Amino acid sequence: MIYALDVFGTFVFALSGAFRAIKHELDLLGVLVLAVATGVGGGMIRDLLLGTTPPMVFRNESYLAICVAGGLLVFLAAGRLAPLWDWVMVADAVGLGAFAAIGAQKGAAGGLGGFGIVMMAAMTATGGGVVRDILVMEIPAVLRTDFYASAAILGGVCFVAVRAAGAPEQVQLFTCLTVTLVLRLLAMRFGLSLPRIKGLAPRPGEGDAEDGKG
Amino acid sequence: MIYALDVFGTFVFALSGAFRAIKHELDLLGVLVLAVATGVGGGMIRDLLLGTTPPMVFRNESYLAICVAGGLLVFLAAGRLAPLWDWVMVADAVGLGAFAAIGAQKGAAGGLGGFGIVMMAAMTATGGGVVRDILVMEIPAVLRTDFYASAAILGGVCFVAVRAAGAPEQVQLFTCLTVTLVLRLLAMRFGLSLPRIKGLAPRPGEGDAEDGKG
Amino acid sequence: MIYALDVFGTFVFALSGAFRAIKHELDLLGVLVLAVATGVGGGMIRDLLLGTTPPMVFRNESYLAICVAGGLLVFLAAGRLAPLWDWVMVADAVGLGAFAAIGAQKGAAGGLGGFGIVMMAAMTATGGGVVRDILVMEIPAVLRTDFYASAAILGGVCFVAVRAAGAPEQVQLFTCLTVTLVLRLLAMRFGLSLPRIKGLAPRPGEGDAEDGKG
Repeated sequence: MIYALDVFGTFVFALSGAFRAIKHELDLLGVLVLAVATGVGGGMIRDLLLGTTPPMVFRNESYLAICVAGGLLVFLAAGRLAPLWDWVMVADAVGLGAFAAIGAQKGAAGGLGGFGIVMMAAMTATGGGVVRDILVMEIPAVLRTDFYASAAILGGVCFVAVRAAGAPEQVQLFTCLTVTLVLRLLAMRFGLSLPRIKGLAPRPGEGDAEDGKG
Repeated sequence: MIYALDVFGTFVFALSGAFRAIKHELDLLGVLVLAVATGVGGGMIRDLLLGTTPPMVFRNESYLAICVAGGLLVFLAAGRLAPLWDWVMVADAVGLGAFAAIGAQKGAAGGLGGFGIVMMAAMTATGGGVVRDILVMEIPAVLRTDFYASAAILGGVCFVAVRAAGAPEQVQLFTCLTVTLVLRLLAMRFGLSLPRIKGLAPRPGEGDAEDGKG
Repeated sequence: MIYALDVFGTFVFALSGAFRAIKHELDLLGVLVLAVATGVGGGMIRDLLLGTTPPMVFRNESYLAICVAGGLLVFLAAGRLAPLWDWVMVADAVGLGAFAAIGAQKGAAGGLGGFGIVMMAAMTATGGGVVRDILVMEIPAVLRTDFYASAAILGGVCFVAVRAAGAPEQVQLFTCLTVTLVLRLLAMRFGLSLPRIKGLAPRPGEGDAEDGKG
C-alpha cells in the first residue's frame, strides 16, 4: 500500500518537474533531468542524511524508470495534460502525504528523535521540489507557497505524537499521510497561509550578518 | 568551552538566516527553514563528507531547537533586534571562528590531510550561509564579501601549522578560533579585501567551457 | 592512463570554473572556490551517493592542489589564456569523457544497475559544472547547452551495453570515454541539439504542481 503510494508520488512529482522544464523551454534532456530530480531528489537527500548509500532509488531502479516515463509523457503530451491540471494538483497532495509518511518512518527507523523525524518528513516530501526550483533558479516554492511544507511538517508532528502514544507503525504512517493530505487539500481549497513580517528589513543592505555591504 | 561556542555560533547563524528570510518577506515557515539551514547547514555538509551519518545535528537535537528559537525570536522581534545589528556582526565573527575550529578538528579526527582540514574548516564555517543564500537565490555572500571565508581558511591553515608543529589539540582549536575571529574583526574594522580581476571576461558569451553559446 | 585523464579533466574543469569567476568579477578566493568546486564537485557528489566517505578527493589531495593551481593560473594570466579558448573547449570535451568513464566504472563497482551507472557517468561529468553555475546563480549550463550532458549519458549507455556484452573493463572505459568525447566534439562542430517544446506553459502562473499562485 505505502509502496504503491510511493510509486504514485514519484510519478506525480516527476510530472511536476517536467512541466517546470517545459515552462523554461528546456530541451528533452532538461525535461528528463528535472523529472528525475523532482521525483527522487527528496528521497535521495533523506537517504544521504541517514547514511543509506547508495540511496534506495539506485537499488530499485523502477523509481528512475517511472520518472523517465513521466518526463517523456509530459514532453510528448504537455498540451493534452494541461486541462487536467487541477487533478495533477490533487495527485500532488497525495504524493506529498505519502512522501512525508515514508520520510518520517525512515527517520524513526534510523533512530532519530522527534525534531529529526519531522525534518525527514519535510525533506522527503519537499526536497525534490527544492532541487527542481534551484536548478531553474527560482526561489524554492516551498519557501513561498502557502501551506505546502507546513502540511508535511504538521503531518510529521502527528506521526511523532501517535508514535509517542504507542500506536502501531501502520497507524503512524496512516496518520501522517492523512493529516498532510487533508491539510494540503484544505489549504488549496480555502487558501490557508502562515503569517509573515513585511517591511522590516531594518537597514537597507544590512539584512544579514555575512554581507555588511549588501 | 568549544561546545558552548558551538551552541553560540549556531544561534547567531540562525539569527542571520532568519533576518535574511524577513528581508525576502517569507512566511513563518520560511523564517524557520532559513534559520535551521543557516545554523546547521555547514555542520551537516561536513558530517556528510566525513561519513558521519546521521549528522551530529540529528543526534543532539538541541541544535535544531536552538535554531528554531532563534528563528522565532527574529520573527517576533525583528524590529527591536535591528539596532543591535553591530553586535550581531561581532557575534557572527565569534561563530565563524568556533565553526572553523570545530570543522578543522573533525577533519583532522577523520584522517584528512592539510588541504582537507582547511576545506572542512571553511565549509563548516560558511556552508550554512551558502545554503541560505542559494535558497533565496542570491550569489553566496561568501564569494563576494571581503574576508569572510578567507578568515576561516587562514584559521584552518594555522590549525594545520600548529598541529604539524606538535601542539596539543586545545592549542590547535584555540589558534584556529582566534586567528579566524581576529582576521574577521580586522576585516570588518579596516575593510580588508582580496584582489580581483576586472573587465577580463575575454569574449562575451564564451566565459566558460560548457556554454559556448552563452 | 585513466588516472592521467582524470587529473587532466580536473585541471581543465578547474580552468572553466575559474574563468566563470573572473566573468563575475569575484575576488581571488572566489576564483579558487569555483575552480575547486568545478574540478572536484562531480566526483564528490558521486562518492557521497556511493557511500565512499570521505570522498576520494580528500584521500588524494593532489586533486585539490591541481584545482588551486588551475585557479591561480587563470587569476594571474586570464588575458593570455583567452586566445586559447577553442583549445580549452576541446580539452573540456576530453575531461567530460574521462569523468563519464570513471563515474560509470565506480557506479558499476558499487553494484548499481544500468540506470544508476548512466546517472553516475552523467553526474560525475557534469556535477562540478552544475555546482559552479548554481554558486553564481546561473541556470546550469547542462540544462541549456546543446549536447553536453547528453554526450555523457550516451557514453554511459554504451558503457552499460558493452559491459552487458561481457567486454573487459578497459574496453568499457575506453568505449564510454570515446563515445562521449566524439559526440561532444561533433556537437561543438555541427551544433547538434535535442528537441524542445516551446510556448506550451499551459496556464500562466500554474506551470507546476507546488506553486499554484505563481
